[in-house]
Amino acid sequence: MQPVKFYFDFINQSSRALYILMEASKIPFEAIPISTLKGEHLTGEFRDKVSPFKCLPVINDDNLSLSESVAIFRHLNREKIVPEHWYPRRNYGRSRVDEFLEWQQRNVSNACGNYFQQKWLLPLLDKTPPEDKNINAATHRLNQVLKDFESLFLNKTKFVIGDTISYADLIAICEIDQPKFIGFDPFNHHPKLGKWYDEVREALGPYYKKVAEEFDNKVKRAEKKIPEVMYLQQ
Amino acid sequence: MQPVKFYFDFINQSSRALYILMEASKIPFEAIPISTLKGEHLTGEFRDKVSPFKCLPVINDDNLSLSESVAIFRHLNREKIVPEHWYPRRNYGRSRVDEFLEWQQRNVSNACGNYFQQKWLLPLLDKTPPEDKNINAATHRLNQVLKDFESLFLNKTKFVIGDTISYADLIAICEIDQPKFIGFDPFNHHPKLGKWYDEVREALGPYYKKVAEEFDNKVKRAEKKIPEVMYLQQ
Repeated sequence: MQPVKFYFDFINQSSRALYILMEASKIPFEAIPISTLKGEHLTGEFRDKVSPFKCLPVINDDNLSLSESVAIFRHLNREKIVPEHWYPRRNYGRSRVDEFLEWQQRNVSNACGNYFQQKWLLPLLDKTPPEDKNINAATHRLNQVLKDFESLFLNKTKFVIGDTISYADLIAICEIDQPKFIGFDPFNHHPKLGKWYDEVREALGPYYKKVAEEFDNKVKRAEKKIPEVMYLQQ
Repeated sequence: MQPVKFYFDFINQSSRALYILMEASKIPFEAIPISTLKGEHLTGEFRDKVSPFKCLPVINDDNLSLSESVAIFRHLNREKIVPEHWYPRRNYGRSRVDEFLEWQQRNVSNACGNYFQQKWLLPLLDKTPPEDKNINAATHRLNQVLKDFESLFLNKTKFVIGDTISYADLIAICEIDQPKFIGFDPFNHHPKLGKWYDEVREALGPYYKKVAEEFDNKVKRAEKKIPEVMYLQQ
């Protein structure tokens, strides 16, 4: 069987979560980096031949092109061998992971992504400083969402749906790293979140470490205006 | 086995889609209507005993309380007998339904929901006429999204993922009914959409007809300021 073609960008949270999942699950894949800062996902070959959705991540598996990270996650669970704990059948684990994935998109993902855009991405692309009003609104919403995450999901068990790590934890840590890696402290006022974050990072071990370092490097390189970003400023 | 407890409001698009799915699949369920216009999902017994998420729809099945309509859809597919065509295994049908469900949430659902709020719900609750600026922005976005829906999904096949109706079509028609039932014409400039809409309505038959009538009645009753809405205006 051909390895899965995986189009991704480490600056994108869902790309990192799926990269870690595939490495940790030993799913053979061909890693094809796409630079969203250069706009490679919007043009030419990618749009015409890889995905009309113009979003990352994308896989191509057995001639099926598939976008949307949650759909990719479920596809891998059906078609490949993914260790049970990521999406457990016992005690309605799959239903509860599914519930979290939908909830987190409208809440954690939305708030973390908006903060990242307002504080870092838009100022970088537009070459203008961020607007205080937008940053304040994004910060307020982010703190509210992190509080909801703590109170709804981190009360009773070590991880989101139980005492074993699942894909719910993996996607959540990658989402929260968006604001964290550009200087936001997510643990201020959220002690349970800090404890959970450390547990998740430890459980993911070297798979997380490598991908987080790549993300950190991308952020720092972009801030130093390396050619990748200069391209946008022509 | 106990019937599934189903908490819903016909004014909510995902509630209608799941209601139709369960009726068409002959899944035994206890229908428990909750009035979101009265705010019943935000307070008291619902928040404390049914769902801390304060959102509809919700099910309770075998002591599992589950929110998020996409998670409920998948739960029913795992735990009950749902006819194959709604979520087909063949030709990676499940992956393509999953991809559509995620895409549509950020696009069709978001644009239809926003139009419904700006044009109908907020003016009703706030007792102030809608603002032209907001309506124009919502209309522009909605037309753009309907155009994307046509060009990405209604080009080659009768229904969204093939020649048989799936849950992708069911959720899409319910989303598009939000603006349609308050007076927006979704088919203007979108002829493929009109053809698809008629095919879906015909395939769903009486299950759709009954639920659409209930929705229409709710909209008309609210507009006539029956007690349900008067409650908010005290």
